[in-house]
Amino acid sequence: VAVTERTDHAGTPLTVGIVGAGQLARMLCEAASALGVATVVLAAGPDDAATQVAGHVTIGAAADPQAIADLARCCDVVTFDHELVDLDGLVGLEDAGAVIRPGPRALAAAVDKAHQRRTFAAAGLPVPRFEILDGDAAGDVAALRELADELGAVPVVKAARGGYDGRGVVVADSLEEAVDAVRGWRARGVTVVAEAPCSFRCELAALVARRPGGEVAQWRCVQTDQLEGVCREVMVPGALDESTALDAAALARRVAEHLGVVGVLAVELFDTADGLVVNEVATRPHNSGHWTIEGAVTSQFENHLRAVLDLPLGATDLVAPAICSVNVFGSADGTGPGSLAAALDEPAAKVHLYGKEPKPGRKLGHVTVVGTDAADVHARAWRAAAALGTHVAASAGAAR
Amino acid sequence: VAVTERTDHAGTPLTVGIVGAGQLARMLCEAASALGVATVVLAAGPDDAATQVAGHVTIGAAADPQAIADLARCCDVVTFDHELVDLDGLVGLEDAGAVIRPGPRALAAAVDKAHQRRTFAAAGLPVPRFEILDGDAAGDVAALRELADELGAVPVVKAARGGYDGRGVVVADSLEEAVDAVRGWRARGVTVVAEAPCSFRCELAALVARRPGGEVAQWRCVQTDQLEGVCREVMVPGALDESTALDAAALARRVAEHLGVVGVLAVELFDTADGLVVNEVATRPHNSGHWTIEGAVTSQFENHLRAVLDLPLGATDLVAPAICSVNVFGSADGTGPGSLAAALDEPAAKVHLYGKEPKPGRKLGHVTVVGTDAADVHARAWRAAAALGTHVAASAGAAR
Repeated sequence: VAVTERTDHAGTPLTVGIVGAGQLARMLCEAASALGVATVVLAAGPDDAATQVAGHVTIGAAADPQAIADLARCCDVVTFDHELVDLDGLVGLEDAGAVIRPGPRALAAAVDKAHQRRTFAAAGLPVPRFEILDGDAAGDVAALRELADELGAVPVVKAARGGYDGRGVVVADSLEEAVDAVRGWRARGVTVVAEAPCSFRCELAALVARRPGGEVAQWRCVQTDQLEGVCREVMVPGALDESTALDAAALARRVAEHLGVVGVLAVELFDTADGLVVNEVATRPHNSGHWTIEGAVTSQFENHLRAVLDLPLGATDLVAPAICSVNVFGSADGTGPGSLAAALDEPAAKVHLYGKEPKPGRKLGHVTVVGTDAADVHARAWRAAAALGTHVAASAGAAR
Repeated sequence: VAVTERTDHAGTPLTVGIVGAGQLARMLCEAASALGVATVVLAAGPDDAATQVAGHVTIGAAADPQAIADLARCCDVVTFDHELVDLDGLVGLEDAGAVIRPGPRALAAAVDKAHQRRTFAAAGLPVPRFEILDGDAAGDVAALRELADELGAVPVVKAARGGYDGRGVVVADSLEEAVDAVRGWRARGVTVVAEAPCSFRCELAALVARRPGGEVAQWRCVQTDQLEGVCREVMVPGALDESTALDAAALARRVAEHLGVVGVLAVELFDTADGLVVNEVATRPHNSGHWTIEGAVTSQFENHLRAVLDLPLGATDLVAPAICSVNVFGSADGTGPGSLAAALDEPAAKVHLYGKEPKPGRKLGHVTVVGTDAADVHARAWRAAAALGTHVAASAGAAR
């Protein structure tokens, strides 16, 4: 690709390369366009979501260090749409002078759950009781049974790498089912994390943006509602009391500083009887933060760009007291989204569709409504999402 | 271009072609990306502002009916970034079945000031006292002198077609200067509008979005501040009292209905001692409405797309009581914009840069600040705009 390096009159470098071209890259490109920032995406194929809006598109595999090296040569900073990348390759590129934000050390926590649990526990960050299973088959199964005995419960088992949106996670009904999952992964050489199932009052997410020098911006923590490991809706502030929200924000900031992350970090947390526990981390904009596009002065996408370009971060204040965001999925028969006209019949709905090929259960878009009353924004967001094919989850009460 | 026709599951056509690829097209493409609407722009050159963010780019002249015919073939509806187009060519295309919104009849009011003044006056819409000069040189000059006698003032003279941002308008100090301007235009066959200079308390702008069936959405009318015919800043609500704002909105709606416009219509008005007078109209998103991106539930760009696609219009409520938007221009030495980092040092500033080649006085971007206090948002917006090179106009008081 021939990309013209873009700088402002003061010489600020303004070309961002994005590894991956899904909906997060698409929304990064929308924010980049507003700021006058140039974008180059490394897409797996020409129909990826972000290719319609990126300044330049290159086709290649995100796990191929050579493809990322080529991307790095035509931009000022490389950042990420997802974490299905080759960490060792990134370390080599960074050593060769490429600017990669977040860097491989921070990315490792999102790429590798075993590494994340180990380093977080060592740093005193609250994680569930866990065991890493990466030895011989007999020893791994014995360790899993021991952990189950200790917990008095069937451990949750997770592939350390490659999972997302509930994939790579098994919440088994019986210990034998968990054993089978571990055996299957280990037979393919996959490291497994086995950990205590958390019983929680609610799930929440805390979002941080951090610049290279350490400047941090944080948004209001939010309540998330998951179905089968996939986020269905985000409520701001949801059922979170102020003190839990502040604790979660402080914990997310500790995680950001521990990782030395540059860009946006999302920390998904369980609010348990014993306090907050880290569930997952993502070192990029995150589904739990899509509400910031309309609901905050500066969106997670804009602040991610500002952070990786080492520009001052924008204000993160809420623009209204109640915000609800609902995801739109491909239907069971692999079609979707539903009727845009019907969704827009709700005049307050901010509809985002990602231009992705529909598949059953695939995230195709989201709807956000901003307002003053929690029940009202919830009802309006679900009304529009339902028109697009998202059916109201049983767990989603109208008053939240 | 090979463009895949995009529809939603309900079959709604979702590919918009845009004639022109300046900043309005760029911001239309940003809004289109969010909605999952596909875009094709007809750009004059590969570096035009919207080419970085459009789904597809074709290169051609906006005034060439064949280029517009080619564009129409690869999209569901054709709309416009500017009005420097061939009206007769558009009529032919429409007769051949192309969907063009706004249509040529509405566009004519924006393309041709003489036509606009004549038809508005005939419809009882308030316009300044005017004369159309399109006869022989001696008769035109005599008519201008007669009008000056009648007014007791030097008429403002305007080329009927081709002007924008103060170009094509002469506000002369002496009648002889106005005579010279008229002679120059008439010698080149340009029709001229001569009209009464308006002394006004303030300039305002009213924005309407209208669907094919007549559904209308309107935003709060705003006060604009012009310097040498170019909008410098927009204040919402500015010094406008509620009753003037409502009168202006009602007048703008009459104009929209008179023209049968589809899409966004901007009406620039003078608030004079004798009431509101129409100054200019634009049948597209307009500089006076950029504040709607952050300041309203639905922006002018999104509602323009929704209107031309015949989708339900979005809510236009303000998200905050005070909004200020300031334009960013190329500096006298042809550089710009200034330091993005310094502009973003104002955390509330929403900076928009259009990626345009700088030229002296060229619009390169704008800054919007949304908040609760008029003086505060004004100061913050100007602080960020000043970092980008816009100097505070003498007329811009800090309290507006």
